[in-house]
Amino acid sequence: MVELIPLLAVVCGVLALSFAAWKSRWILRQDPGSEKIQDIGQSIREGAMAFLRCEYQVLAIFVIVVAVLLLISNQGPLRLVSLSFVIGALCSALAGYIGMRVATASNTRTAQGASKGLNEALQIAFSGGAVMGMSVVGLGLMGISILLWIYTQTLGGEIAILDEQVLPILNGFAMGASSIALFARVGGGIFTKAADVGADLVGKVEAGIPEDSPKNPATIADNVGDNVGDVAGMGADLFESYVGCILAAMVIGADNNSLQQVFLPIALAATGILLSIAGTFFVRTKEGGNPQHALNIGTFGTSGAMLLLTAPLCRILVPDQWLNLFGAAAGGLVAGVAIGVITEYYTSEQRKPVLGISEACNTGAATNIIAGLGVGMASTAAPIMFIAAGIIFANYFAGLYGIAIGALGMLVTTGIQLAVDAYGPIADNAGGIAEMSGLDPEVRERTDKLDAVGNTTAAIGKGFAIGSAALTALALFAAFRAQVGIEIISITNPKVMVGLFMGAMMPYLFSSFAMAAVGRAAFAMIEEVRRQFKVIPGLLEGTGKADYAKCVDISTRAAIREMVLPALLGVVTPVVVGFLGGPAMLGGLLAGVTVSGVMLALFMSNAGGAWDNAKKHIEGGHHGGKGSESHKAAVIGDTVGDPFKDTAGPSLNILIKLMSVVALVIAPMLNS
Amino acid sequence: MVELIPLLAVVCGVLALSFAAWKSRWILRQDPGSEKIQDIGQSIREGAMAFLRCEYQVLAIFVIVVAVLLLISNQGPLRLVSLSFVIGALCSALAGYIGMRVATASNTRTAQGASKGLNEALQIAFSGGAVMGMSVVGLGLMGISILLWIYTQTLGGEIAILDEQVLPILNGFAMGASSIALFARVGGGIFTKAADVGADLVGKVEAGIPEDSPKNPATIADNVGDNVGDVAGMGADLFESYVGCILAAMVIGADNNSLQQVFLPIALAATGILLSIAGTFFVRTKEGGNPQHALNIGTFGTSGAMLLLTAPLCRILVPDQWLNLFGAAAGGLVAGVAIGVITEYYTSEQRKPVLGISEACNTGAATNIIAGLGVGMASTAAPIMFIAAGIIFANYFAGLYGIAIGALGMLVTTGIQLAVDAYGPIADNAGGIAEMSGLDPEVRERTDKLDAVGNTTAAIGKGFAIGSAALTALALFAAFRAQVGIEIISITNPKVMVGLFMGAMMPYLFSSFAMAAVGRAAFAMIEEVRRQFKVIPGLLEGTGKADYAKCVDISTRAAIREMVLPALLGVVTPVVVGFLGGPAMLGGLLAGVTVSGVMLALFMSNAGGAWDNAKKHIEGGHHGGKGSESHKAAVIGDTVGDPFKDTAGPSLNILIKLMSVVALVIAPMLNS
Repeated sequence: MVELIPLLAVVCGVLALSFAAWKSRWILRQDPGSEKIQDIGQSIREGAMAFLRCEYQVLAIFVIVVAVLLLISNQGPLRLVSLSFVIGALCSALAGYIGMRVATASNTRTAQGASKGLNEALQIAFSGGAVMGMSVVGLGLMGISILLWIYTQTLGGEIAILDEQVLPILNGFAMGASSIALFARVGGGIFTKAADVGADLVGKVEAGIPEDSPKNPATIADNVGDNVGDVAGMGADLFESYVGCILAAMVIGADNNSLQQVFLPIALAATGILLSIAGTFFVRTKEGGNPQHALNIGTFGTSGAMLLLTAPLCRILVPDQWLNLFGAAAGGLVAGVAIGVITEYYTSEQRKPVLGISEACNTGAATNIIAGLGVGMASTAAPIMFIAAGIIFANYFAGLYGIAIGALGMLVTTGIQLAVDAYGPIADNAGGIAEMSGLDPEVRERTDKLDAVGNTTAAIGKGFAIGSAALTALALFAAFRAQVGIEIISITNPKVMVGLFMGAMMPYLFSSFAMAAVGRAAFAMIEEVRRQFKVIPGLLEGTGKADYAKCVDISTRAAIREMVLPALLGVVTPVVVGFLGGPAMLGGLLAGVTVSGVMLALFMSNAGGAWDNAKKHIEGGHHGGKGSESHKAAVIGDTVGDPFKDTAGPSLNILIKLMSVVALVIAPMLNS
Repeated sequence: MVELIPLLAVVCGVLALSFAAWKSRWILRQDPGSEKIQDIGQSIREGAMAFLRCEYQVLAIFVIVVAVLLLISNQGPLRLVSLSFVIGALCSALAGYIGMRVATASNTRTAQGASKGLNEALQIAFSGGAVMGMSVVGLGLMGISILLWIYTQTLGGEIAILDEQVLPILNGFAMGASSIALFARVGGGIFTKAADVGADLVGKVEAGIPEDSPKNPATIADNVGDNVGDVAGMGADLFESYVGCILAAMVIGADNNSLQQVFLPIALAATGILLSIAGTFFVRTKEGGNPQHALNIGTFGTSGAMLLLTAPLCRILVPDQWLNLFGAAAGGLVAGVAIGVITEYYTSEQRKPVLGISEACNTGAATNIIAGLGVGMASTAAPIMFIAAGIIFANYFAGLYGIAIGALGMLVTTGIQLAVDAYGPIADNAGGIAEMSGLDPEVRERTDKLDAVGNTTAAIGKGFAIGSAALTALALFAAFRAQVGIEIISITNPKVMVGLFMGAMMPYLFSSFAMAAVGRAAFAMIEEVRRQFKVIPGLLEGTGKADYAKCVDISTRAAIREMVLPALLGVVTPVVVGFLGGPAMLGGLLAGVTVSGVMLALFMSNAGGAWDNAKKHIEGGHHGGKGSESHKAAVIGDTVGDPFKDTAGPSLNILIKLMSVVALVIAPMLNS
């Protein structure tokens, strides 16, 4: 009976994609606004698509090279891992492409919708996010299920064959997804921050023109950046989390010799898709209402319903330990929500940490930076305690499989989570378009309201991202250990300790690359914006026209060039360590990169978020308000925080999992 | 025969202390300078001693409480661990006291000596450092040897008794030393940075008076800070490294059932003392000469000679594996020197990283901070590769014992290393005194020259500190594993993974406490300096007299108050985790805190050092020089770097070892 689950999952995947297509058509039917709005939207879309084209060209070479390497270094049926890898990469790229196309169609329509009313704008922006969310989960689950079905039909569906052949081959799918995710996150993060820093430092600070002014040559690049970084980058990120987590649970289930445990994750994911689709219908508000409530009902409602359905699903599929598995899933969900709430505490404008940072701005930039770094460091403590509790809890209930199910408890509703996450940058973009096309200030107010309320939900999303990354990495680690066939990786073995040290170092090296890349790219952007102000006559007076495309081009080139080295670092290191140092050292490497990466990611993301909101707090009229010395100090903190929270920080989540997945894929070779 | 080694070591310890006494008397015979110089010197000394008094009062309570706890929680002869703990704490405190007394007598005499010539000043400053160095190694080795002798006489000297009773008891000595070290480093670090930031931000930036101007109320506190942070703090730090490393090697030797291996570390340390004393005689320069050469000859000469003598010593004591042990010691030494050279590369004013940071100052404080953080992160990679190589190398030659001997290879010449380290702040102080007492500018030039040249040697010293901390922590970890009687601590065990996560988090939490403490203390200092400028008539015109004592008092109170929480964190956490989570989770905790702590310490120390020198580079006339916008940006970076490199960074080295030592001391209780 359980063998039918993949087919049911394919049906759910098709449903998700159909829903996405239906939503897309609905969006395209909405009023695209005046010619001016459409012009601006066109520039943003072209910039975003140009970036995606360049990025995918580079990725195509990477995917082909790795696929060939996987083909020649494996024997027998294991060679199919190469096929899984290519399809995983393709699905991830396709999800990114769809999300980006729709996001760049939704932004103008959201701006236009906001001139009619709050709910109109919310519906369009959220629908744009929902297309992204459903594409990700639909393609992810369909990809896994179809491949699983084909492989079991070809090789056989017995548990031993699943354990030794089918799942090792299927792991290539996660590796493809992870590789694309790391490139997309790093590339997108560099693009968006180079444009942002360039637009801010020269436009706002030097030339004194407002944000999103059409006089600023980098303003289109800035809006393109929101799409490539926050929409496509995040989509690829969650695609790999979702896929990696499902596969890790399946591998551990197979290692436990339980067909039921192998298919339970797919069944849970399929149910999550149905509930996510249903959840989107509850997201609606009315004029003067609080869009936050709408989003909360959608996401928390879906999570709650999912939890309720998890119990009977486990009861049917794994009757002898259903309560334990339910406990593990619930534990993961609680840990994820808790980390989200903590994230919000440390980064919210109303709470002590950010208020303290704002106050530190009174004594200048140095004290602001010290305070922000301190808050970022302190913010690691509580989430780690919840991750630790989640691990102990899930493990107590259901062993290593429980840890994977705990991670799945957070990720199973990715469909609607991602809809909310991607809704933010669309609303943000709409605000920029409203500004550039000179719409009524009331329109901007509405888009700002939409943009602002995503914060709590986004914080919860971040909590899920980091919590699930930690648990998924552990599950992948357990899967790696099972695949490589060693029971014990003891830190009393100096080789393991060496692996730990090197693994702990990786996130630092990776972040330094990312930060340096943003620095170089931003520098090139600053030079270009200054040049245009100098050579284009009448630009600052509003009579000349800025060369937006040139700025987009600079960000694109820089991002593509700079993303390669850090991303390769993540792929190559586990291979080198695995083959030179052996499985034990590789195990140490994975543990090291996981603990150190989670820490650094929490530190950087939260410090960045806190600086951002400390600046907003001062701009809200405190400590002298805009233009004061305190504000200048706050802007410096915010600029430092940008690559922290939007480039290096989120990339680390992927780095952790990518390295684990690569280790998992090469495990059969280390074994033989 | 080997049983006589402790007695010979006691003789060497007595020699070291006699040498220190002889040097002290020589220093006191030097010209203390004019009445004005003596007045200033008196203020600094009183401030430093007042701080030490306050600190030791708090420490006395801590020591008594812990001693009682150790007494009641152990049974039988193991109760003696309480005695070892108290004596370890006393020896560390005594070394700090001696070093501080002599340093605060050397600073005025160095200033006065500099008015005669370069070599005169060098001799006095270096002698002051040598007193500190010899007190530390003399008291450290004597303490261990005398206690070892007493315990073996009482309980027996057979290897089984050493392994099961004598060494577990002796470990209390290292715990006493480590506890004092953490308090001293954190307290001293907070004191010195609060005074420094207060003096700089209000005095230099707001009031526009030069550094070390007597008009600045915080200037005496600033100079006191150099003594309590850089002399007493560093002394306690190296005392614990030295003691911890010797003991870890002894414990592993006993676990290997080899009396020879137990006594070899003591023999090596005793030889290192003799060579360090001899090395001090080679430190001399002539007018116009380069003091760097003098210091290099002293330190590198001693290290080289030590390496040469290590071979025959191993040959005599452990004939069957002497070449292997020699290889391990040499490997450790090479790794230490390499890390030092890398540290210098990343923080030197002439190299690419710092030049890049200086250039980033052109585009403002934000790019400066981003560049500095990037350099700090990148700087972790190469040292980790050398630590990894050192571990593999030492382990290949002589197993875990080899790792401990590798650490000892770096630390065995602590006597002269510390002399050079402590010489820096004395020369720095002398410069401040010359400025305050209005000596000839030529005098300040000489002290500046002396201050500047310590950099390379100090960088090597830092490399030794971090490299030896990593290896010592591993050795202590191995000792813990041996004591607690478990062979395997596998990261595939979720409990161990939870320990890893919590351990990796500790350095972040600890650093956030330290940074926040510096922020609060500096804020209090800023307020006080502003107050004095406002209420004391004629202060800025040079007719009024600043209330120096009040500023010293503020720094003292803040430091004492703020040092308690982070230091307790280090002591209490392993106890709680050990008793609640069991030995496996505690093992994970130790591994986590070691890898994460080493990483964060490298990152923070090197970022701080790089910002410091980027500022100096700009002050040397580049990118607009002093007073330019670039310089302002550089000052912000330097201020952020201060708590990084002088408070949090160096404290992490101690935190790592303290937690390991605490685990080692409670190991017999976890076992039973």
